Amino acid sequence: MNMHQHMNIGTYLLAALQRAGVDHIFGIPGDYILGFYDQLAHSGIQHIGTTREDSAAFAADGYARQKGLGALAVTYGVGALNTINAIAGAYAESSPVVIISGSPGTDEIRDDPLLHHRFGPFDYQLRIFRRITAYAAVLDDPVLAFRQIDQAIWTAKTQKRPVYLELPRNRINTPGHKLPGQALEIAASDDQALREVVQETLQRLHRASRPVLIAGIELHRRRLQPLLKRFIDQTGLPVAATLTGKSVIAENHPQYLGIYEGVMSSSLARATVEQSDCALMLGLTLNDVDTGIFTTDLNPSTIIRASKGEVIISHHRYQKVLLQDFVSALASNAQPLSYQFETPAADKRVAVASPTADQPLTIEGLVQLINGILNPGLSIVCDTGDCLFASIELRVPRHSAFFASAFYTSMGFAVPAALGIQLAQPDRRCLVLVGDGAFQMSGTELCTHARNGLAPIVIVFNNHGYNTERYILEGPFNDITEWRYDRIGELFGPVAGYDVRNEREFDAAIEQALADTQQVSVLNVHLRIDDPSPAMRRLGAHLNKKLQTSTDQRGEDSRVV
Amino acid sequence: MNMHQHMNIGTYLLAALQRAGVDHIFGIPGDYILGFYDQLAHSGIQHIGTTREDSAAFAADGYARQKGLGALAVTYGVGALNTINAIAGAYAESSPVVIISGSPGTDEIRDDPLLHHRFGPFDYQLRIFRRITAYAAVLDDPVLAFRQIDQAIWTAKTQKRPVYLELPRNRINTPGHKLPGQALEIAASDDQALREVVQETLQRLHRASRPVLIAGIELHRRRLQPLLKRFIDQTGLPVAATLTGKSVIAENHPQYLGIYEGVMSSSLARATVEQSDCALMLGLTLNDVDTGIFTTDLNPSTIIRASKGEVIISHHRYQKVLLQDFVSALASNAQPLSYQFETPAADKRVAVASPTADQPLTIEGLVQLINGILNPGLSIVCDTGDCLFASIELRVPRHSAFFASAFYTSMGFAVPAALGIQLAQPDRRCLVLVGDGAFQMSGTELCTHARNGLAPIVIVFNNHGYNTERYILEGPFNDITEWRYDRIGELFGPVAGYDVRNEREFDAAIEQALADTQQVSVLNVHLRIDDPSPAMRRLGAHLNKKLQTSTDQRGEDSRVV
Repeated sequence: MNMHQHMNIGTYLLAALQRAGVDHIFGIPGDYILGFYDQLAHSGIQHIGTTREDSAAFAADGYARQKGLGALAVTYGVGALNTINAIAGAYAESSPVVIISGSPGTDEIRDDPLLHHRFGPFDYQLRIFRRITAYAAVLDDPVLAFRQIDQAIWTAKTQKRPVYLELPRNRINTPGHKLPGQALEIAASDDQALREVVQETLQRLHRASRPVLIAGIELHRRRLQPLLKRFIDQTGLPVAATLTGKSVIAENHPQYLGIYEGVMSSSLARATVEQSDCALMLGLTLNDVDTGIFTTDLNPSTIIRASKGEVIISHHRYQKVLLQDFVSALASNAQPLSYQFETPAADKRVAVASPTADQPLTIEGLVQLINGILNPGLSIVCDTGDCLFASIELRVPRHSAFFASAFYTSMGFAVPAALGIQLAQPDRRCLVLVGDGAFQMSGTELCTHARNGLAPIVIVFNNHGYNTERYILEGPFNDITEWRYDRIGELFGPVAGYDVRNEREFDAAIEQALADTQQVSVLNVHLRIDDPSPAMRRLGAHLNKKLQTSTDQRGEDSRVV
Repeated sequence: MNMHQHMNIGTYLLAALQRAGVDHIFGIPGDYILGFYDQLAHSGIQHIGTTREDSAAFAADGYARQKGLGALAVTYGVGALNTINAIAGAYAESSPVVIISGSPGTDEIRDDPLLHHRFGPFDYQLRIFRRITAYAAVLDDPVLAFRQIDQAIWTAKTQKRPVYLELPRNRINTPGHKLPGQALEIAASDDQALREVVQETLQRLHRASRPVLIAGIELHRRRLQPLLKRFIDQTGLPVAATLTGKSVIAENHPQYLGIYEGVMSSSLARATVEQSDCALMLGLTLNDVDTGIFTTDLNPSTIIRASKGEVIISHHRYQKVLLQDFVSALASNAQPLSYQFETPAADKRVAVASPTADQPLTIEGLVQLINGILNPGLSIVCDTGDCLFASIELRVPRHSAFFASAFYTSMGFAVPAALGIQLAQPDRRCLVLVGDGAFQMSGTELCTHARNGLAPIVIVFNNHGYNTERYILEGPFNDITEWRYDRIGELFGPVAGYDVRNEREFDAAIEQALADTQQVSVLNVHLRIDDPSPAMRRLGAHLNKKLQTSTDQRGEDSRVV
């Protein structure tokens, strides 16, 4: 504690982040944050420079998902405002990111001068970030600053949301005050409610003739995967996952059903879930993506739904029951169910070249080829677009993981997020799945992977445009420029590039890429423009029908998704 | 009028934009805005697809500066939030941009569902944009929508600021109501105040022994350049410009002094302005960039300063005097001054190769080489970094123009802004000056230039990192990855690329680039890492001195710029 009495605000912030597990801070310097960068350069935390600030935020998001907390440092205005989409995404996707923005000194703003990077009253940036973070503060008061830093990190870690700290540049080197330890309010379960809800849940599962479990994103963010595994191993329950929760249970687990999301589900998951008479939902957020745009067909009376702070069974509600306590108690009290789930035949890829080895690849075929190479040494990072919907059919094995912006669905997420994921988990190599449109948004960030000696394998699902939109409404606005993605190394390589048009070329390229662990590999996989993933095909039909209805009803209220 | 009774909200918006001079709308479709894109595709306005939404906003900003109004259309959340930095920049830089964002239908949000791209309550996006625009509205009410659209466009055009229109997707095709013409409040000058201030101004100028004029950004945004020229031609006044107002007067005009910005000024401008006994400032914003970080040395008693709505002379103030009326009245009443300004010897580049033709280029030498090729057929678009400070020494000729984010100083501005500027003014070719750091942020947007048959010449000032920061505080965080900028065509060309290391190579490359009007040209000009522009050198010394002071006073309030 004594140590802190001699610390200044910047060094205290760095020390607190490091204690919380942050070993890398992403971002781009600028004059309002330069003093903090100087401290960072002399700290135990490594700075990772990106080409753009939004990339830094996506990288910190990926890092946070893997490691429990991520951080970035940017300058005022031009830096911070560039991260808003990515930080809003971290909020929507429950990712604990600390964004640190420099700002003009408290002494500089007294006369309200027109300083560069200013876009309005000086506090507008704070006011904007308040709307997309769980905690936001300006560290302008040395008496409060250390406490604000503690509160910010604690909020990020407990609420799994981004937080915002603004550091006026004349406060970076100001000594702060270590106040007596603040009692941070810790939410706790009500013991009796917990006991009762666990009992009722287990009873219902044992009584059911076709029970099922659906696993969601919050299990990942709260690191409850081992408890989940213990529970399903002991009960024998079949388990589906939502798309945002994908890989929270190993997808080669014998009881795994696939992704459940209404009409977009894999067929086994949909049939099992929708015919169940007791569906236990753990850590789900019922957003439009995870519900297949609200096309789930479930009977509320059969549902047990545990979210962050409560459990709802049929039509009654247990409040003050935390998800982690509930899952932990379930795992501790689990017994084998009398219901026996019949393990489906595993997906198997034929090892020898198929008769279509020289035919153009289909998106469905590409996913099957990728399934053939998945292994626990890979982290899969998937961008937004049809590659996300296609990835429903990927089977992510145990000790691997799947990362995506599956609810917020921001394009351009995957390449920069993989930077953070890779640094947070050096034992696994990133396999990045990205559409051509998304790659054009942030693919050049691969230069930062290369600069840091990282070697992701990037598979560009090149279907020539914004294809998830083509199935809703086609028009010239869905076309984009054709890039030679495999030649990006010319710009800043070495990068191993592969132009892939069929299965034979894919096999050769991926074999080399897997063996080549020293550099970035990019596979430009050419797909047909009229080749939607199975899930997209199902959703497209559904959306198109809705749009038609709406077009017929011009002028009236109508719901178009 | 009758026509409007049958128009729906989307088509009315398109018609209103087109009437206001918008022939191109930038942006990327997404499902919440897709219906509007369909209308756009069937309208007389051309859609220009960009690779990222922030590029669309920068392009619309450039378009607006050239043409008087620009527009972009994006989807909710992931699209709109990606434009915030660029729109805040348009606000700071007085550029009238209309941002149109799709949003979930009014019918969809009634039950507050978790729709994709959502990051908080549905109205948070509106609340964020209110802080960075002069007008923001949701077009959810068919009775008000047409009036809101009129108000938005009128506000953008009169206030020279961005405005925000949110279009719920179930309202795109809803017929709107044409209300009786609304009297939009038009600001007007007070005739008597105007007469008096013009008289006093002219008297002071005639009495002064060393009068001078300083021309600022608002003259450009309000298109008062012809009046300014008439006034200085008739009076013979010498004239300096601010950096944000650069090129508002042709820089080859015989009375032109150069850029005035405190310690960063060109020397003739600084001497003339600071020794003047009557400085007429027209349309200046006294921000830190234009004042050389508040290093101007001026006596308030000698200043006549006209801003948007008032004129301040010495210590008294004329309110209700609009800039355009003031400049117009000055131009109409101008008489030759008795003071005779002596025209300085013009900067002349030696036409033959200099003895240093094979030596590495300096940034100062590069700017002189660029001066040698400037002509009225070029628009110069300059990014943020040392190329901006170096451009102080550029002499932009008549009928050409200079564009930069000179006050907001957002990196990544130039390449996408040039897209808009080129489309708004097809008769001039864009010459883009951009640093290596800024190019890495948005340089791949050149694929959109190429796709639209545009042929900018891009000169990359490759000084190997964030060099404007090196002179404030050096550290490894100022380093970036080295790209081979001249080989970007490998990714999406054809692009003519040139690797340039000396004057001879520059001359050969620029000659070819000027002759090659059919494709994008990129010159990767290698500069030394320790070679700041003259202005940067002066500023760096100044900043460094301040930083030293601050470092010595750790813990105390201190002003570090």
